[in-house]
Amino acid sequence: MRTILGIIALISVQTVVAQQDDSLFIRKLADEVLTAGKAYNNLRTLCKTVGPRLAGSPGMYKAEAWGKQVLEESGADRVWLQECMVPHWERGKKEEAWYTIKGEKAKKVNMDILALGNSVGTDPKGITAPAILINDFNELEAKKDLVKGKIVVYNNIFDNRNTQTFKSYGESGAYRRSGPSRAARYGAVAVMIRSVTAAADNHPHTGSLAYDTAYPKIPAAAIGLQDADALIAALKAGKEVNIYYRSDARFYGDTLGHNVIGELKGTEFPEKYITVGGHLDSWDPAEGAHDDGAGCVHSIEVLRALKAIGYKPRHTIRVVLFANEENGLRGGNKYAQEAKAKGEQHVFALESDAGGFTPRGFGFTIDKEKLERMQAWLPLFLPYGVHQLTAGGGGADIGPLNRALGTPLAGLTPDGSRYFDVHHARSDVFEHVNKRELELGSLNMAILIYLVDKYGL
Amino acid sequence: MRTILGIIALISVQTVVAQQDDSLFIRKLADEVLTAGKAYNNLRTLCKTVGPRLAGSPGMYKAEAWGKQVLEESGADRVWLQECMVPHWERGKKEEAWYTIKGEKAKKVNMDILALGNSVGTDPKGITAPAILINDFNELEAKKDLVKGKIVVYNNIFDNRNTQTFKSYGESGAYRRSGPSRAARYGAVAVMIRSVTAAADNHPHTGSLAYDTAYPKIPAAAIGLQDADALIAALKAGKEVNIYYRSDARFYGDTLGHNVIGELKGTEFPEKYITVGGHLDSWDPAEGAHDDGAGCVHSIEVLRALKAIGYKPRHTIRVVLFANEENGLRGGNKYAQEAKAKGEQHVFALESDAGGFTPRGFGFTIDKEKLERMQAWLPLFLPYGVHQLTAGGGGADIGPLNRALGTPLAGLTPDGSRYFDVHHARSDVFEHVNKRELELGSLNMAILIYLVDKYGL
Repeated sequence: MRTILGIIALISVQTVVAQQDDSLFIRKLADEVLTAGKAYNNLRTLCKTVGPRLAGSPGMYKAEAWGKQVLEESGADRVWLQECMVPHWERGKKEEAWYTIKGEKAKKVNMDILALGNSVGTDPKGITAPAILINDFNELEAKKDLVKGKIVVYNNIFDNRNTQTFKSYGESGAYRRSGPSRAARYGAVAVMIRSVTAAADNHPHTGSLAYDTAYPKIPAAAIGLQDADALIAALKAGKEVNIYYRSDARFYGDTLGHNVIGELKGTEFPEKYITVGGHLDSWDPAEGAHDDGAGCVHSIEVLRALKAIGYKPRHTIRVVLFANEENGLRGGNKYAQEAKAKGEQHVFALESDAGGFTPRGFGFTIDKEKLERMQAWLPLFLPYGVHQLTAGGGGADIGPLNRALGTPLAGLTPDGSRYFDVHHARSDVFEHVNKRELELGSLNMAILIYLVDKYGL
Repeated sequence: MRTILGIIALISVQTVVAQQDDSLFIRKLADEVLTAGKAYNNLRTLCKTVGPRLAGSPGMYKAEAWGKQVLEESGADRVWLQECMVPHWERGKKEEAWYTIKGEKAKKVNMDILALGNSVGTDPKGITAPAILINDFNELEAKKDLVKGKIVVYNNIFDNRNTQTFKSYGESGAYRRSGPSRAARYGAVAVMIRSVTAAADNHPHTGSLAYDTAYPKIPAAAIGLQDADALIAALKAGKEVNIYYRSDARFYGDTLGHNVIGELKGTEFPEKYITVGGHLDSWDPAEGAHDDGAGCVHSIEVLRALKAIGYKPRHTIRVVLFANEENGLRGGNKYAQEAKAKGEQHVFALESDAGGFTPRGFGFTIDKEKLERMQAWLPLFLPYGVHQLTAGGGGADIGPLNRALGTPLAGLTPDGSRYFDVHHARSDVFEHVNKRELELGSLNMAILIYLVDKYGL
């Protein structure tokens, strides 16, 4: 017993000493990020000089050049572009929608709308059809015989009762993703959804739909909440409503895009990789400040700050600015494919794609045992705002790495209160990012990368 | 042993059952606050129709009328105004400051400034004097012989390295509070401080100074950071700088103000009070959205939501919108004095005066043993964002209750990242408050009040 107790005591002492050393190192890292951080200014440049950067757009190429330059300036040992074919969808020159109510002097009520990403457009003259209100998919099934020839208006509500806003996004977002094809199955000619948000303003929120190839592809758009609720109120009151919708949205041929990659070479395990990233593309009407400019500058700052304070990583740390997360995930898939083809060892991957808000935690896709070991690091995070290291999480772009190579994943979990107010909308601009909140995100990511690099998994 | 173990087991079972009941009740409370909450709209009215409401100003009276009406509409059993004499300071019609640099063609450089609260004004013609840069109080002592006849410019830095922004506020804010008198002691004719903020914009941030009556009262103002840093750079470069400062600030006679109080009568202990509040006054250039409109609407929402879901409190729950926190604390003092004079039993008091940001915890001024009992409630808060119940905290307005009657205190601790960006500045407006963050603050306060009311302390 004494021996075992002695060993336990020794381990405890070592753990305490290690945590004190780590705590000092992390303090140094914090001083660097909080007083000399570059993430905020980098984000300003990305938002204000590059701007929107959907796959295939001119902004995509400008963003790639920006990423390469910033990674070089941040001290990466090596920066390169990884080629990747990406889809090229455009909403086109014109999109508009209005409605008229029978018996109400045919006054046109304009709606602020955005075609959903990957949607087909309408006939160049637009389409006009009677609207039918569908509150949820159960009601769609119940009313399937009434849908033919109509424009389905989904009354998908972003449920404020969920304490996790991402849960509401998942629920309400289902109508954006699969709502069009489910309505097309019963002969609907177009779909309009309430934007997937609870914001009090009227900005429409776009985002990808996914057509089920078994049914006709019909055009679909998101309506700003104020306009949507006025339309829905008219339908609920039993009024006969005709909607006009015009959209020039269409796909062009795939085009060449790139993941932008920068790395700090590992001193001990140069052939073992730790990836940290966000996605470089953003929706066309927005600056993509929170989604996902924040994740890009978070990740670059991890590399910059570690380098700036003289840290020599044991593993090779790679920052990846992924291409085409929003409407294809081609960047994430390509990165994992090439890693597998080259037989690379990817020990860990971290993504930031939930905004530049004050950090609260990390979610992990990892063995329970390993997670428990990592949870012992929590006291090192607590002074900097991260208070939970929980099971479940990662990121869309690093998911393929996990599926291809079994790489353990983590995702930064910022406070989710404000994310869906601006997500995929015009309002996702630099001005809605707070400097300190953004910096605290970078800092906590850098802490996690440091600990994984130092202790392994 | 079996008996004791049996008792322990029984207590554990009871605790678990109690927590399940509580958890269901809290879910109901959350649904009410998150889907039918009034705090955000109440705050809009306070900010946009009442606006600035410094003690003694016309806004103060409008705010009192607003508070009374909203408490009545929110279902208080009784609402009244508690009289309280308050100071009446005004910054006056005109305030301006500029400087010239010797040898630089006498071009005037204007600065965006705000007189500090409670400051005296200058001569109506203004004053002109050479500037002297003082980096900290140590340097003031070292250079005390050089200060006479000069305008002291404090280079007080808001230290971004502190992970708690309130710590930086305490440190940098010392120059606002006591800097003027410390400079006056050595013959300075006026004081200018860097605003107590780390915001990237140029808005000056006012706030109270406290004169030491042993020394002459000299006028003092805060400069917006961009202007301050340009001035300080010139002084650091050894340039001879003359500052012109004009302010009409002055006190008028004390005037009658009020604490606005609404209560839900206790069913079991009507003579035992639980107080929840914020302060109704705000600085004159701002809407006082975060400071402390948020605290007012948070507190009103606690009462409204508990009443709306049919909760009958055991103790009398009082919402107090305190008068004159910013430059006198007369409201808080009066409330405690009257409580003491009437022999009231105040079992607990909670204040929200750190902004309407996403909640992270509560800080308590309470016996260690009682705090530990309360910490067992943490699992009930975790789903709603509060993750720490810590020692130390309360609020300026409820402090006197603790000192007079020993009442245990708590203060809401929202995330502090953004608070000092807008604190006491023109930018503290309704638009900088997020609906969901505000509602989560109300909700967690309501949870705490419910638990204290149900279980006592």
